[in-house]
Amino acid sequence: MGDAFKALADPTRRHILELLAQGDLTAGEIAAHFSMSKPSVSHHLSILKSASLICDQRSGQNIVYSVNLTVFQELIKWFYDVDLVKGDSDDEK
Amino acid sequence: MGDAFKALADPTRRHILELLAQGDLTAGEIAAHFSMSKPSVSHHLSILKSASLICDQRSGQNIVYSVNLTVFQELIKWFYDVDLVKGDSDDEK
Repeated sequence: MGDAFKALADPTRRHILELLAQGDLTAGEIAAHFSMSKPSVSHHLSILKSASLICDQRSGQNIVYSVNLTVFQELIKWFYDVDLVKGDSDDEK
Repeated sequence: MGDAFKALADPTRRHILELLAQGDLTAGEIAAHFSMSKPSVSHHLSILKSASLICDQRSGQNIVYSVNLTVFQELIKWFYDVDLVKGDSDDEK
């Protein structure tokens, strides 16, 4: 959970997640959204992958990245379980 | 938002937030829950305060800490807005 929050602390990585939430993308497609170098984008992708926030899968010559929604559900669960957020999920307790 | 996620990356700081979510506490009361030194606890409190995750208020000789729920709502809002979490709030869109 610490690694996930640490990964989310960076605005570029949050932007990558915003892009992937709309659909799976290759590293090249992700890099096209940023002015930084491809190795820099790859570094951010590896941090997101280490934190299990994204998954990668080889597809021909490309690696396709997708969001790992399970980990986000776990993070959200912590906010609700700890009572740091009041919301609809209180009904489920 | 980056500061908030960075602050949440540390397990001690998440534990402090879990304690404060149950009710306001003084620095001494918080420190009593940890084996670390009071200055170390104070350091974590200052990071949480810088990230606007907690507020402090003087009460006589003590400083009382409380959770700033507004910032947590903003963090949760990001998860839902970005579609990284599917939940009840989809109904509200």
